Amino acid sequence: MLSLALLLGAGSAVLSRGASTDLLQARDPDVDPRRAIVAHLFDEALAGNSAYSKLQELCQATPHRLSGSSDAENAVSWARDQMTHDGLDNVRLEPCTVPHWERGRIAVLEVTEPASARGTYLPILALGGSIATPREGLEAELCTVQSFDQLAALGDSARGKIVFYDRAMDPRTLDPFEAYGAAVDQRARGAVEAARHGAAGAIVRSLTLRLDDLPHTGSMRYEDGVERVPAAAVSTAGAERLAALLHKEKRVAVRFRLDCRENPDVPSHNVVGEIRGQSRPDEIVLVGAHLDNWDVGQGAHDDGAGCAEVLEAMRLVRALGLKPARTLRAVLFMNEENGLRGAHAYRDAHKAELARHVLAIETDRGGFSPRGFETSAQGELLASLRSIAAMLEPAGAGFLRLGGGGADVSALREDGVPVMELLSDAQRYFDVHHCSRDTLDTVSPRELELGAAVLAAMAFCAADASAGIAPPQPR
Amino acid sequence: MLSLALLLGAGSAVLSRGASTDLLQARDPDVDPRRAIVAHLFDEALAGNSAYSKLQELCQATPHRLSGSSDAENAVSWARDQMTHDGLDNVRLEPCTVPHWERGRIAVLEVTEPASARGTYLPILALGGSIATPREGLEAELCTVQSFDQLAALGDSARGKIVFYDRAMDPRTLDPFEAYGAAVDQRARGAVEAARHGAAGAIVRSLTLRLDDLPHTGSMRYEDGVERVPAAAVSTAGAERLAALLHKEKRVAVRFRLDCRENPDVPSHNVVGEIRGQSRPDEIVLVGAHLDNWDVGQGAHDDGAGCAEVLEAMRLVRALGLKPARTLRAVLFMNEENGLRGAHAYRDAHKAELARHVLAIETDRGGFSPRGFETSAQGELLASLRSIAAMLEPAGAGFLRLGGGGADVSALREDGVPVMELLSDAQRYFDVHHCSRDTLDTVSPRELELGAAVLAAMAFCAADASAGIAPPQPR
Repeated sequence: MLSLALLLGAGSAVLSRGASTDLLQARDPDVDPRRAIVAHLFDEALAGNSAYSKLQELCQATPHRLSGSSDAENAVSWARDQMTHDGLDNVRLEPCTVPHWERGRIAVLEVTEPASARGTYLPILALGGSIATPREGLEAELCTVQSFDQLAALGDSARGKIVFYDRAMDPRTLDPFEAYGAAVDQRARGAVEAARHGAAGAIVRSLTLRLDDLPHTGSMRYEDGVERVPAAAVSTAGAERLAALLHKEKRVAVRFRLDCRENPDVPSHNVVGEIRGQSRPDEIVLVGAHLDNWDVGQGAHDDGAGCAEVLEAMRLVRALGLKPARTLRAVLFMNEENGLRGAHAYRDAHKAELARHVLAIETDRGGFSPRGFETSAQGELLASLRSIAAMLEPAGAGFLRLGGGGADVSALREDGVPVMELLSDAQRYFDVHHCSRDTLDTVSPRELELGAAVLAAMAFCAADASAGIAPPQPR
Repeated sequence: MLSLALLLGAGSAVLSRGASTDLLQARDPDVDPRRAIVAHLFDEALAGNSAYSKLQELCQATPHRLSGSSDAENAVSWARDQMTHDGLDNVRLEPCTVPHWERGRIAVLEVTEPASARGTYLPILALGGSIATPREGLEAELCTVQSFDQLAALGDSARGKIVFYDRAMDPRTLDPFEAYGAAVDQRARGAVEAARHGAAGAIVRSLTLRLDDLPHTGSMRYEDGVERVPAAAVSTAGAERLAALLHKEKRVAVRFRLDCRENPDVPSHNVVGEIRGQSRPDEIVLVGAHLDNWDVGQGAHDDGAGCAEVLEAMRLVRALGLKPARTLRAVLFMNEENGLRGAHAYRDAHKAELARHVLAIETDRGGFSPRGFETSAQGELLASLRSIAAMLEPAGAGFLRLGGGGADVSALREDGVPVMELLSDAQRYFDVHHCSRDTLDTVSPRELELGAAVLAAMAFCAADASAGIAPPQPR
């Protein structure tokens, strides 16, 4: 391991300086030499505030980085400049074509029946990809369901109405991502299923465990051959208000107005930079996050934090002068939120070298305290990743479970690349997800720095592993 | 185990309802029957918002619960009423006598030399227990040190000066409590050591990893026979400003003013309530937190969150109709922050039954995501606690380490009672600790609920363990 030799030669006086050094070594009577590197990465991450500074720049200069927007394009330039500034190799923009949907300025929902509730306005946000309502708004009776099965059971009686999907995320589910997964069908397919049953629109309870007045947006899609109807998310407190009305009244009607617009696709880019491998430069360990976000809040956690962690992880490896055996490649993907066009473009452009992608690590679960990873790796690679994860235990981030990784690496996974995702403490994630609260002030600099250190340690050790990772096989 | 039989008899239809039930059982092929109880406790905690509601009431009605204050006395009444409302047994106030220090209204620090910096005001807070400065302020040259050793090495040259203690918490230490422990001597003993060397006052860098303009208070003490000099904490940004001046200038002088006041001791109370044990009512598992806080912010994390967790843990056990074998005793201690008088009064009043205290669990590390526990238990008890902790792993709270527990149970520990402390994610704790930022809005309802569930599970299972806990021995 060239890098370790270099490090120990150059910096042995530094080895005792950081307190994390002691902690990380304390657990290992056998003295795995990689632990010294891991400890240095933590020391470097925690002693400064570089990760948070990066996030601050991104969020303040380009808060609304929705694909096709000027903020998204400015974020691409910023990320390229940041990689160049941090001394990465082969910094480049890789083209993709992205949708260009615009929310517009109007999102209003008013209760129109019963007369006693008329004039009640509830906070909504258009779902991403929704069409506009008619200019004067869409007014119809509400029918409420908790599932598509219930909707189907209504038969013809949803016709002409607005379907109100009111299934809450189950707070008893320990992992909020699991609760989200069990409720997100309403948002993604609610408009299509409503239209199939003749309904005129869809209102969906926001996907969060908080009871408050912030609506949460997110992607939805239409299907060819099914009429397109407008769809919006209502805040959870608004949803409870509607549910209470529907419980009490025979007939509840609302009018909602959206002025969204779908524009023609536009060119955009993934941003790529590397630390070239010393002995196996053609083998790649990818670390990725997504640069785009929704056009509310600042995308501080989703996925500004991931971008900051990826950039910072690369900076940390460079700052210590580490030279991994394999190439470490940072990819900031465009268009995760509403299309995955960047992820697909990356896969298509790199088809010929996918078999040499040893591992693709994604971080897209917010800048909270890191807890560990999930991975689709198997066999020798899995064993190697387990041994790396074990070194992260003293930082509370040694958890490793099997799983499919995040959205941006899913296309790579389909093509046989082992994937991995950083898992952070998830309990606050859906407080901020896709809503106006996803701002810089909800990110703890310390938790973000730890995330960057954990990512750097995993990525570097995987890229540098001289044993335990099978040579890539043609797939 | 009576309680389990009752629960399974009464509620088997309920067993499949909560998603956490599945998760908690999924890990256990051998089906430990306690897992069903643990899962129910989680379901009950997560489905409502009772823990956060309690915290909200406490913080909003009585934000400044410093011992001897009217907020502290009102908090005592509130806690008693809350325990009564939640149906606890033997709810009572147990007397203690507490100090009554008042901060006053004035805390000002002005740079007076060099002339170029005159008029620079830096944010300070009196340390808890400090005397006032003279009315016109204390003006003197600064001398800066990083440690008491450095101060001693200065010899006579600190005489008449204000000692500026500028040792920062080391950000590279993974556990912020460890970094705090390595820096807190400056705050606790800085005034005494300064006075021993003839200095006229002490200014201490705030104990936080954040670089910002909020000063953090906390306790200090004087010693008989050593002159009392005033002491204050300056914000970390203020400390950096002073350090920069001291680096550049030959002579830096400041004037600071405090109008603190020490009043005579006053009577106060610990608040105690129980769930009486069914088969071994004389054996006690104590769960405790402290009701007092500093007179800045709202003490939302320190230790309002702990109080809410203790009250909620008792409510959860009651809500499920669980009847532990041993008595579960909730104690909300007074005066943790500046004297531990409540803790000592409890020990003294319960001397005769200390040998029947099977375990004393404290929660005083903020309402963040629970990670596990530390305990001083040994032998059979330790093994039993480990088996309980293992059940909390699916909630990310299965960590168990050996350690001494918190301040309020320290007196019990000295008398041989095994102690335990809830460990929560510590990375954000010192952002809010003892400063104006320790307010309700920094507490995640979800993280607090998880903490209450984890505490309830540990306390109930320990109180109900029919095996694995040795009968208490006379000490």
